[in-house]
Amino acid sequence: MKSYLEMTAEERQEELAAQRKLYDALGDIHLNLDMSRGKPDATQLNLSMDMLQLNPYDLIYTRKGTDVRNYGELAGVDEAKELFANLLGLKMENIIMGGQSSLALMYDNVIKAYVLGVFGGSKPWGQQGQIKFLCPTPGYDRHFRITEEFGIEMITIPMLETGPDMDMIRKFAESDPAVKGVWCVPKYSNPTGCTYSPETVEAFAALKPAADDFRIFWDNAYFVHGFREEDDKLVNIFDCCKKYGSEDMVYEFLSTSKVTFSGAGVAVLAASENNIKFLTKQMSVQTLGYDKINQMRHVKYFKNVEGLMAHMKKQADYLRPKFDCALASLRRGLEDTGVCSWTNPRGGYFISFDGLPGTAKRCVELCDAVGVKLTPAGAAFPYGIDPEDRNIRIAPSYPSTAELYTSMDVFCVCQRIAALETLLK
Amino acid sequence: MKSYLEMTAEERQEELAAQRKLYDALGDIHLNLDMSRGKPDATQLNLSMDMLQLNPYDLIYTRKGTDVRNYGELAGVDEAKELFANLLGLKMENIIMGGQSSLALMYDNVIKAYVLGVFGGSKPWGQQGQIKFLCPTPGYDRHFRITEEFGIEMITIPMLETGPDMDMIRKFAESDPAVKGVWCVPKYSNPTGCTYSPETVEAFAALKPAADDFRIFWDNAYFVHGFREEDDKLVNIFDCCKKYGSEDMVYEFLSTSKVTFSGAGVAVLAASENNIKFLTKQMSVQTLGYDKINQMRHVKYFKNVEGLMAHMKKQADYLRPKFDCALASLRRGLEDTGVCSWTNPRGGYFISFDGLPGTAKRCVELCDAVGVKLTPAGAAFPYGIDPEDRNIRIAPSYPSTAELYTSMDVFCVCQRIAALETLLK
Repeated sequence: MKSYLEMTAEERQEELAAQRKLYDALGDIHLNLDMSRGKPDATQLNLSMDMLQLNPYDLIYTRKGTDVRNYGELAGVDEAKELFANLLGLKMENIIMGGQSSLALMYDNVIKAYVLGVFGGSKPWGQQGQIKFLCPTPGYDRHFRITEEFGIEMITIPMLETGPDMDMIRKFAESDPAVKGVWCVPKYSNPTGCTYSPETVEAFAALKPAADDFRIFWDNAYFVHGFREEDDKLVNIFDCCKKYGSEDMVYEFLSTSKVTFSGAGVAVLAASENNIKFLTKQMSVQTLGYDKINQMRHVKYFKNVEGLMAHMKKQADYLRPKFDCALASLRRGLEDTGVCSWTNPRGGYFISFDGLPGTAKRCVELCDAVGVKLTPAGAAFPYGIDPEDRNIRIAPSYPSTAELYTSMDVFCVCQRIAALETLLK
Repeated sequence: MKSYLEMTAEERQEELAAQRKLYDALGDIHLNLDMSRGKPDATQLNLSMDMLQLNPYDLIYTRKGTDVRNYGELAGVDEAKELFANLLGLKMENIIMGGQSSLALMYDNVIKAYVLGVFGGSKPWGQQGQIKFLCPTPGYDRHFRITEEFGIEMITIPMLETGPDMDMIRKFAESDPAVKGVWCVPKYSNPTGCTYSPETVEAFAALKPAADDFRIFWDNAYFVHGFREEDDKLVNIFDCCKKYGSEDMVYEFLSTSKVTFSGAGVAVLAASENNIKFLTKQMSVQTLGYDKINQMRHVKYFKNVEGLMAHMKKQADYLRPKFDCALASLRRGLEDTGVCSWTNPRGGYFISFDGLPGTAKRCVELCDAVGVKLTPAGAAFPYGIDPEDRNIRIAPSYPSTAELYTSMDVFCVCQRIAALETLLK
């Protein structure tokens, strides 16, 4: 078949009529499918049910004798801090155990920096006029919503194969003291699936920001979420920072929302000892600590890093066929059109899809009308606006494989219609 | 025996020598006892262990079919909202389920009001110059630390038998638009044990604050924590507010930290529908929701309000003897001195003790030196400063009864020494 670009107007009209016929038939199937968010399905969640069946009497005392059912241990139990420190190649002293949402932990650190300031900063972000954040794009919509909520100006930084365009990051961060931070998903990035190259990580560590209170929000959400035989390697940013004395510049976040239970796991903040001391002091005003029983559940269930990785192998084995299915559908359904491209990630929860400029909103709308819900077009961009209106985030984890097969077929038809409509304009 | 007030200087000297001898002997016992915080002991925590032994497969689906192991239900599961709404005499629509710390929820609402503003307010608290909070005193030290952290000026309001001095509350709140809020523990108040009278609650509801963004922080921490036969009755403030159209003025907080597990239960925010809608929208930027598995644990364990109250009966039966022991020790150990007074609460976690002016710090220091840890003197006052240096908060819940007996004996000796030293100055 000819690519859409090679077709004559007449051929495009014919093809559009054919695709519309296929689309019209879809309305009769009354679909109700959701590919909008990166979340596990019930079967995947079942993989962690044993964690809820541990003998509770085995959970209640830490090795140093703390009763986890009571107040105390503000920054979390040692065992949990140690587990995640080992996972990240850090020390226990670099860890604060948060609640069950790393997003909430990021929000908390933005709002506290805004009102109270950060370690080493001369005054709170909120007392410095209009401040700015760098936003590698496409990126995670919920990051951008946080900065938008606080009126922080967002500067779009293009994502390359190697991570964010570091020349631009450097240019903005090093010249403008109003630039206070940058959002990063360094491994299996949301949504492109890209893992930052060693050079990119090193360039982050080497930054000399104009602001004395600049922070890299290093959201390592998919650190252990490879699902192919070969796992991407992410350099430990704190190791790089040592060379430059820049350890205080990084807040690293992760959670077990996609390891055990989404929104009912544990979250982690990793940072320099200076930051941890400073933040623990702030935290002592805020709470008496997060749920330590749940921390102990995770510790006793995984035992150690090897246990956690063995668990992630099961998750990978469950997720891989879904990605295979979605990618096969895209190849089968759209490759010959010659007007689309998509990522082929080795981990994470997303496929990032690019159609012709001006097609994304229309495609999402067409899918929605026949019961296939996608992430809103533009979601991966600051302020929710994709200037080219071409990017769509596909999240294949939640539907069953059969549902996914159907959803992707619908997606391909809608994408074809949107592309042809645009080409015929 | 003569009261210390009636004694001559010589008799006081003699008595002081006798008490010092008792005190010196205490050093040899090497005590390590803690009456500093209102927290349960391990046996009391055991009362809730069955909640951790529920079959996890019975927890995972809500009645409307939501999988609680996954994202969703931002404001909490209906069952949990309903349970706490019923407990408080409110509707499900008035409830947001928070994390596991009501303190964190209060902090969160202060900082958000500061940066983002509250429903109906013209601009955020933080953009209105120096703002102020009313602080009924003695009160909860951690409340005061939150307002101190944000540089909010604290105005001391005396606690009467009926609750805070409402003439003063009215005077400040209704004349000064910089007054943005008031901290309240309306039932079995921390530390006096007082429950606000119906007139006090009505007076709160009838407030006409000068500020359009004034909030009553109604920390109902001990709502179900009566331990005597007769439970204090607290009027439902929202019922009163209806009369005055002032529902939007109140944020009510509670948690199960002293119902199930301290720092590992669930927390609740109750408010008008206007507030709930406004706060849920703010919350949607912050998180995908709190731990719903733990919400379901609480729901399935208690079943309903009656179940929760039956559970609290067990807690009361466990706590009552500790209060009896502490109160008997005070009577036996200090009544004849004629220079001290203390509260006799019907619930909550504290006894508020008043010695002679200028004795509290000294008494705490003496206790500490022989291994009995008390809440720092002045903790119950804004900025940690008791202008008369006479108030001490006694928390009898954590030590065993035997430890408590010893601790209270130590306390009485130290109190006598401090009183005599002051009288002899």
